[in-house]
Amino acid sequence: MTTPAFEATERAVRLPLRAGLEGLTPYGAPQLDVPVLLNVNENPYPPSDAVVADIADAVANAAHGLNRYPDRDFHELRAELAEYLRVESGVVVVPEQIWAANGSNEVMLHLLQAFGGTGRSVLSFAPTYSMYPEYARDTLTGWVAGRRAEDFTLDVDHARAQIAEHRPAVILLASPNNPTGTALPLSTIEAVCEAAATSGPPAPDGGTAASVVVVDEAYGEFRREGTASALTLLPRHPHLAVSRTMSKAFGMAGLRLGYLAAAPALVDVLRVVRLPYHLSAVTQAAALAALRHRAELMSQVASLRAERDDLVVWLRDHGLQVADSDANFVLFGLFDDRHAVWNGLLERGVLIREVGPDGWLRVSVGTPRETAAFKAALEEVLGW
Amino acid sequence: MTTPAFEATERAVRLPLRAGLEGLTPYGAPQLDVPVLLNVNENPYPPSDAVVADIADAVANAAHGLNRYPDRDFHELRAELAEYLRVESGVVVVPEQIWAANGSNEVMLHLLQAFGGTGRSVLSFAPTYSMYPEYARDTLTGWVAGRRAEDFTLDVDHARAQIAEHRPAVILLASPNNPTGTALPLSTIEAVCEAAATSGPPAPDGGTAASVVVVDEAYGEFRREGTASALTLLPRHPHLAVSRTMSKAFGMAGLRLGYLAAAPALVDVLRVVRLPYHLSAVTQAAALAALRHRAELMSQVASLRAERDDLVVWLRDHGLQVADSDANFVLFGLFDDRHAVWNGLLERGVLIREVGPDGWLRVSVGTPRETAAFKAALEEVLGW
Repeated sequence: MTTPAFEATERAVRLPLRAGLEGLTPYGAPQLDVPVLLNVNENPYPPSDAVVADIADAVANAAHGLNRYPDRDFHELRAELAEYLRVESGVVVVPEQIWAANGSNEVMLHLLQAFGGTGRSVLSFAPTYSMYPEYARDTLTGWVAGRRAEDFTLDVDHARAQIAEHRPAVILLASPNNPTGTALPLSTIEAVCEAAATSGPPAPDGGTAASVVVVDEAYGEFRREGTASALTLLPRHPHLAVSRTMSKAFGMAGLRLGYLAAAPALVDVLRVVRLPYHLSAVTQAAALAALRHRAELMSQVASLRAERDDLVVWLRDHGLQVADSDANFVLFGLFDDRHAVWNGLLERGVLIREVGPDGWLRVSVGTPRETAAFKAALEEVLGW
Repeated sequence: MTTPAFEATERAVRLPLRAGLEGLTPYGAPQLDVPVLLNVNENPYPPSDAVVADIADAVANAAHGLNRYPDRDFHELRAELAEYLRVESGVVVVPEQIWAANGSNEVMLHLLQAFGGTGRSVLSFAPTYSMYPEYARDTLTGWVAGRRAEDFTLDVDHARAQIAEHRPAVILLASPNNPTGTALPLSTIEAVCEAAATSGPPAPDGGTAASVVVVDEAYGEFRREGTASALTLLPRHPHLAVSRTMSKAFGMAGLRLGYLAAAPALVDVLRVVRLPYHLSAVTQAAALAALRHRAELMSQVASLRAERDDLVVWLRDHGLQVADSDANFVLFGLFDDRHAVWNGLLERGVLIREVGPDGWLRVSVGTPRETAAFKAALEEVLGW
């Protein structure tokens, strides 16, 4: 495309790009037009006509008042998200414990704007979600990556040592982890919370602060039977935040609604750094409508879990290594040339993700038809 | 409200709040339930039933695919915003020059994430929009406030001196200015752009960078005849960005859609710091629907301008000082006890804003009926 308005530019000036951004390109998985999209862990099931109609009605109602600013503190949405968490996890959560934003991305940004910044660090354990270093970068917070074990679990002694060494302002634990699918046992999260209670950066008055522990449960609803949510730990740990999203289990990636539950005092701090009116009236209305249909929207979670477990078995039966998964995706390998496998699948119309430690690939759990297409393509590529 | 989940909290920990946030409370004008709301410069005209229906249809269409992530680069919306600017201002703008986010707030955040940060500063001229220091604070950027003249215009020599002294990464000029209503002449903006071409912070390699000049035209559509938009300066100044919003003239405050136009190279930098998928599919669909109705939505702008000009005359006829206004609000005074006047109006069901330099008050331009209510209340309060 041409940019006629700039053909006549008289001079070149140099933009004052801040240090650390030179030469960077925007984040994002390749967006390719391919029949089978199993690359970004979306829910393969679109909302039903009933859900769509209710969202449209709710937005129409809200639209009559769009000339006015939205409820800055989204009271009704916070109440419904609290109620949803109560039903989903069995943990009592009240509206004052809820924070929400335009995707978990923005929730994480608010957390690091409140607790991170120059001279502070966020600690996580690799391999983990590739956006985490970007949250740190965009808030001028140092990034420290400890390591997960060979099987992608987290060794508590290693975690304690990293916490003691770095005194991070924030500790980010993905559970289930992306891209490995690994859920952390409650005992591990609890041990981290205990270690974090007095491990934060020194307070301005010399006092002792905690590290904020953020458990990213973006894929929490896909956890297997017997895996508990970190929400159960909230009452005992005022420095714990558990984040969730409507993008995955809820099948609402296009809506951009992430949220967290934490102690009310922690949520109050996020209200200071959020820019006012960050959640539009349209987003609030659509999210509330979707939440009213939670039984229907969540009904696919059980079948996606079953589909995932079958896929893990199938891959292992074919001799591949597969990480245990509590999410809606599966990390499998090991390949000497994973790019060749990824590309072979793409040539057959199946887009997965080349991500994670070297030799591994990640595939999202799709519909049974999509999974079948993936299996057929993989069989061809690997010559099974 | 009670927070039962926290009654049993076993211990108090101290959150690692970052320096500078201690004791702060969230930003925001008081949200009071009052018959006449003239406090936050909203457009008093709600969208018509036709606009509402089109938004609902567009959102319903988008909702069928909500399980998928939205177009990360909102190509269609950028094209339509470019076309709107062309029609509104007569300046040719291409889609690659457009950036958008959830409100101008987030646009400004992206600008300061790209160009601000530790050791850098943003320069503006007070009195001006009260959110500007918060953008700086939330991005760890220094805040420097030069001054506007007694009549709220900007003296070019003062501006040049401030720029040379502080070498700011970003210069923020509101035009029309909030809360004063003052538009800057193009000659002033151009002089600032000239001074800014080599006034930025030193580049990492010791080279000379520009200061990015941001002209905040949130109220640009309300400018009086003969006042040009800074968009006309874009072709000659690759370090200039002109921001707009759908909140004001468009009457879409609840939608949260802010945007800017700048050189494509400047926009590309914002793409690096934005978190992916920041604009939801619902927001994109609703904004596109509203833009299709731009003729209707903009039709109130002319009457709001006329209403504003009449209000300025009326206030001056009653002996008050009134700042020239190119916006949809009017700053008037001077009062020895402005809070008493504000409160007297509130007691009569009219909410305006206690903001700006001491002694002044700001009133938004409402419907003729709302303006009449404001006038009647003011007459009572001041004993006219």
